[in-house]
Amino acid sequence: MIDLVLVGIGTGNPEHLTLQAMRELNAADLILIPRKGDDKSELADLRRIICAQVLTNPAIRVAEFDMPRRNTTDPEYHRGVTQWHDAVATVWTDAIRTHLPRGGTVALLVWGDPALYDSTLRIASRLTPVPSVRSIPGIMSLNMLAAAHTITLNAVGAPFLVTTGRQLRDHGWPRGVETLVIMLDGECSFQHVAPDNVTIYWGAYVGMSEQVLLSGPLAQTGPRIVATRAEARARHGWIMDIYLLRRCPPVVKGSQKLR
Amino acid sequence: MIDLVLVGIGTGNPEHLTLQAMRELNAADLILIPRKGDDKSELADLRRIICAQVLTNPAIRVAEFDMPRRNTTDPEYHRGVTQWHDAVATVWTDAIRTHLPRGGTVALLVWGDPALYDSTLRIASRLTPVPSVRSIPGIMSLNMLAAAHTITLNAVGAPFLVTTGRQLRDHGWPRGVETLVIMLDGECSFQHVAPDNVTIYWGAYVGMSEQVLLSGPLAQTGPRIVATRAEARARHGWIMDIYLLRRCPPVVKGSQKLR
Repeated sequence: MIDLVLVGIGTGNPEHLTLQAMRELNAADLILIPRKGDDKSELADLRRIICAQVLTNPAIRVAEFDMPRRNTTDPEYHRGVTQWHDAVATVWTDAIRTHLPRGGTVALLVWGDPALYDSTLRIASRLTPVPSVRSIPGIMSLNMLAAAHTITLNAVGAPFLVTTGRQLRDHGWPRGVETLVIMLDGECSFQHVAPDNVTIYWGAYVGMSEQVLLSGPLAQTGPRIVATRAEARARHGWIMDIYLLRRCPPVVKGSQKLR
Repeated sequence: MIDLVLVGIGTGNPEHLTLQAMRELNAADLILIPRKGDDKSELADLRRIICAQVLTNPAIRVAEFDMPRRNTTDPEYHRGVTQWHDAVATVWTDAIRTHLPRGGTVALLVWGDPALYDSTLRIASRLTPVPSVRSIPGIMSLNMLAAAHTITLNAVGAPFLVTTGRQLRDHGWPRGVETLVIMLDGECSFQHVAPDNVTIYWGAYVGMSEQVLLSGPLAQTGPRIVATRAEARARHGWIMDIYLLRRCPPVVKGSQKLR
């Protein structure tokens, strides 16, 4: 029998670890760490650093495996993702059989939180036999973005939508919501938004020592973000960024105060 | 000069504290703890328990203050909230002057995360003189809800909307989004949703030892939640709950597989 524990580790600051996450990691028999290729080696390094800082139980085995790459050329996005999940599940199964032939508890360190734009839970459901799975919540990039800018995610009593750059490009600003949090955006999709009365709060590497923040009216700040993002990506070889867009109602003449 | 640090403490499990939150609490000169009346005394107790477990610096002063009550009878919701924020800001100012006349660092323990349906940041902006404010992210109830049910918040590449019970009642299910996370709902507003093809994942006291979870098709599970919620609220004297609604596309005849 395999127990799988998906441990949210936050956004790259080892201090984001919760007491629960530390206890769960120390209760594992095996910790699997993905190697994702040279361009993202800082991410694997972070997992190694966390293990080195946190693990007090010398019996825990830490095993690295090569992460399969997703076929990003498949025009069918969902098919490409599904095939990739299957490939990762196969690699996990092999690694678990090799290192834990009699079963036990396997922990995976999940960037952010296992619930937010992360594949780990879906991959886990493809393992055979199906293991028992638990999720340990972690600090998400959207919490960290808001904390870094000292803003709230929602206006008073109002909703916010968490979505992707692709959705924003393909479907525009959705009706009935004035705050959007955009993730997984490799193309600065805020450039497709009419910038009037929109403020952007952008962050890259949020929570990490490399953190970069920019905020202000979208019209003026958007081009600065495009340039800053390209420069940072070139320098680090990879980038993770996220932003919040908030649209204020246009100022009505004669009105003293709108909010 | 006053430095104000808003520390997210998670959803009631002392193990939700991050290493960063513990460090920040121990670096404060003063920690303010609200007393909210007998019916929510478990919440103040939790803050006291966390302080007792975490604080290693005996120089830190821990001061309690009586939290003003919001006038929930005001038919103008936003006006009632604004007046309440002003009243809380006045109480904070008095407490800080009394306990920290020469200035210093004041920490507040914020349930969940300061960015999510929490007033602390807005109240802080009403203090005079305006302090420097920092936010420390914490585990949010929506992370904990997803972790407790071992589900993801989003479908692959899809958006989700975080909103309130009031919004769901007044405006119905918004267009273009199949996943809703509902917070601040005292009235089981899922009863206003057409239940076809909708699954609900509900949790009360998520993350706490009192945690109660229910999930399933909305049509069958909704009435069970209404009953369970009323019973739990009567027993504890208070309740905090949250739920996720996910609508699947209706099954089309002849189709082998929809997702």
